[in-house]
Amino acid sequence: MTQNYPVQVELTEGKDLLLAGVRPVETETVSLENGFGRILAEDIRARENIPPFDRSPLDGYALRARDIALASREAPVTLTVTEEVPAGAVAGAPVGAMEAVRIMTGAPVPAGADAVVKYEDTCFTEHRVTLFTPAASGSNIVRAGEDVRAGDIVMEAGDVLNPARIGVLAGLGYPRVLVYRRPLVRIISTGDELVDIARDLAPGKIRNSSAYMIQAFLQSWGMDARIHPIVGDDKDQIRKALETCMEDADCVLTTGGVSVGDFDFVLPAMEAAGAAILFWKARMKPGMATIGARKGKTLLVGLSGNPSAAVAALFVLCLPALRRLCGRRDWELPVIQAVLAEAYDKPSPGGRVLPGRLEIRDGTPFFITQKHQANGMISPWSRCNLVGMVPKGTGPLEKGSRIEAYFLTSAGF
Amino acid sequence: MTQNYPVQVELTEGKDLLLAGVRPVETETVSLENGFGRILAEDIRARENIPPFDRSPLDGYALRARDIALASREAPVTLTVTEEVPAGAVAGAPVGAMEAVRIMTGAPVPAGADAVVKYEDTCFTEHRVTLFTPAASGSNIVRAGEDVRAGDIVMEAGDVLNPARIGVLAGLGYPRVLVYRRPLVRIISTGDELVDIARDLAPGKIRNSSAYMIQAFLQSWGMDARIHPIVGDDKDQIRKALETCMEDADCVLTTGGVSVGDFDFVLPAMEAAGAAILFWKARMKPGMATIGARKGKTLLVGLSGNPSAAVAALFVLCLPALRRLCGRRDWELPVIQAVLAEAYDKPSPGGRVLPGRLEIRDGTPFFITQKHQANGMISPWSRCNLVGMVPKGTGPLEKGSRIEAYFLTSAGF
Repeated sequence: MTQNYPVQVELTEGKDLLLAGVRPVETETVSLENGFGRILAEDIRARENIPPFDRSPLDGYALRARDIALASREAPVTLTVTEEVPAGAVAGAPVGAMEAVRIMTGAPVPAGADAVVKYEDTCFTEHRVTLFTPAASGSNIVRAGEDVRAGDIVMEAGDVLNPARIGVLAGLGYPRVLVYRRPLVRIISTGDELVDIARDLAPGKIRNSSAYMIQAFLQSWGMDARIHPIVGDDKDQIRKALETCMEDADCVLTTGGVSVGDFDFVLPAMEAAGAAILFWKARMKPGMATIGARKGKTLLVGLSGNPSAAVAALFVLCLPALRRLCGRRDWELPVIQAVLAEAYDKPSPGGRVLPGRLEIRDGTPFFITQKHQANGMISPWSRCNLVGMVPKGTGPLEKGSRIEAYFLTSAGF
Repeated sequence: MTQNYPVQVELTEGKDLLLAGVRPVETETVSLENGFGRILAEDIRARENIPPFDRSPLDGYALRARDIALASREAPVTLTVTEEVPAGAVAGAPVGAMEAVRIMTGAPVPAGADAVVKYEDTCFTEHRVTLFTPAASGSNIVRAGEDVRAGDIVMEAGDVLNPARIGVLAGLGYPRVLVYRRPLVRIISTGDELVDIARDLAPGKIRNSSAYMIQAFLQSWGMDARIHPIVGDDKDQIRKALETCMEDADCVLTTGGVSVGDFDFVLPAMEAAGAAILFWKARMKPGMATIGARKGKTLLVGLSGNPSAAVAALFVLCLPALRRLCGRRDWELPVIQAVLAEAYDKPSPGGRVLPGRLEIRDGTPFFITQKHQANGMISPWSRCNLVGMVPKGTGPLEKGSRIEAYFLTSAGF
């Protein structure tokens, strides 16, 4: 059988092959209360200013700055208070010469006034206010449109709805908002050695931990991730599971059965299910044994049965494609440079994917690795917010070396 | 009336007063599939090793290293293959002298063997395998307990269930896990100027944006946050709303009505509802006008009606108490130092709370502020993952100054 797909691709090639065919999922409307963390599916043009009018940020007197330009302790200036404007109300008349309006926090600054002086800096009675210093024109006035200007595009399709964006949408009067639906990702773990997490272990068996870890990563990225029952090392069973999952999933991830051994059935099962293979194996460690495939609009990725390798590939090969599927416009992961806090005893000259944690100490961003990291380990990924990319061709890295890493911040911020 | 509470507290004092009475909420059991982001409420002691047995990380031959100690291209060593062990199975007999067992990725290393050599480095037939180089004892064996050792406490109550911890729990056989329930926080916005977000604006009115932004922040921190209908500037109405919300909420947040003006009713309404006031006003800008209070187990916080001030106080005064309420054991926020990317034209010598974003450029962590920041603005909080704490007594800060900031990473990592 001829292979019509690339084998042993470079990381960026594998990532781009997965990305190439991906389009955002469909949209749906959600209430703003359920909008947090969702991906906006429409551009938002402000229909109004925020704030909608010139407002006072404090309780005080609205007045004309020129009337008190010469005010001092020795020569205070007294103005006539014409009315009082609580928040939510508007003044009945403009502020005239030598007049002031008593005004509450959040109230509109009346026409004619160009400054607000806070209560505490005045002496006042019901009908008079006395001022002892000048005020600059414009002082203590929050201008209409200072936060958001009417007519501006304030958000774009593909933006994550973080709390401040939710606040802006509320301020602009969006009780509902158009977002991309959460992509459905189904996870199939394959392997005769796997038992369900609720079962006791028999000799030679391990529990299906990868599926749950992958599910949680997908949940953290805003996806609806569901776990298919475990499938044995059988091409036909794997094909059937793939076909079932492809009925409704936007993406199907498998674990196990992707390397070179006699019991590796995932690639032929994907082909038997009608998928086009995009690549087999990527030049990365761990995570080399990864399959990228596609059938119609459905993305398929065959991940390693090794949990750490599966997660490494999930981040560096799949995540950009998954973010694009979610509708994000910033689907590529941000890269930073950090300094290795400890030497990394790199075992061979190939490229490495290394989980780590950003810590800033004394103004320097450090890449913190767990002391003890081995190939199959889950625990180094536990507090990981950096995924270090050690290029091929380098030997062991000294403490203090700079490495590049993907920086994983929360979706919401 | 005598005030029996402190006024104008320092930030740490206000934060500690809110923290002091807080205890974690009750616990509940959730399935592991719904565990992501939840706070663990039990210590987890590993009942088994992960992996549970010495396993092979690749397809190859398990053998005794001493048998091939002298193997070379010129003098290859051939061993007898006694059996084949797929993943999930166990060998029928130990590996003896000059014997090898064909072994699949994930299969247990048979007794007697102390090394695994991958297929690609051998020549083999069904019953014979030939080796051309020695292998170190222990090579290509993933040791039982390498990731998690039986008997160890691997997680503690108060840990956030991030994806790797979910994976470890799955590996240890926890289909369900004990977590703290999500605290219920009710949000009451007060002010005659407020209209619902679905309504059109009348002159002098603004929409109730703060409640939605605060709700989203609380959601991002794992809480169940619900918005109460808007309440006008009326002490009795506010008291009634507080009483209703306190019936089931673990925490009630209000916005508006907390400064010094004639229409500030929240503090007296809290007192009328039977709450003990913990403090009124904190030395911070924005966010000075904040009330801390408590009734029984319910935490009450009166936030400013100014959205930016409300969020600033939410972070620096309330968040540690809220994290403790959630059951987190790391309730204090991590602090980092970052370098101001632009000068900060600090308008007065008081302390400031400044939203910003961490960017690492050329190995230096920069504190990025939005160019245009004014007191009432929501937008600077949009991509904020740093909350800068500018101490009182400082003047304008030059570009390149170091400032301390709370570093807000995602809960899940």
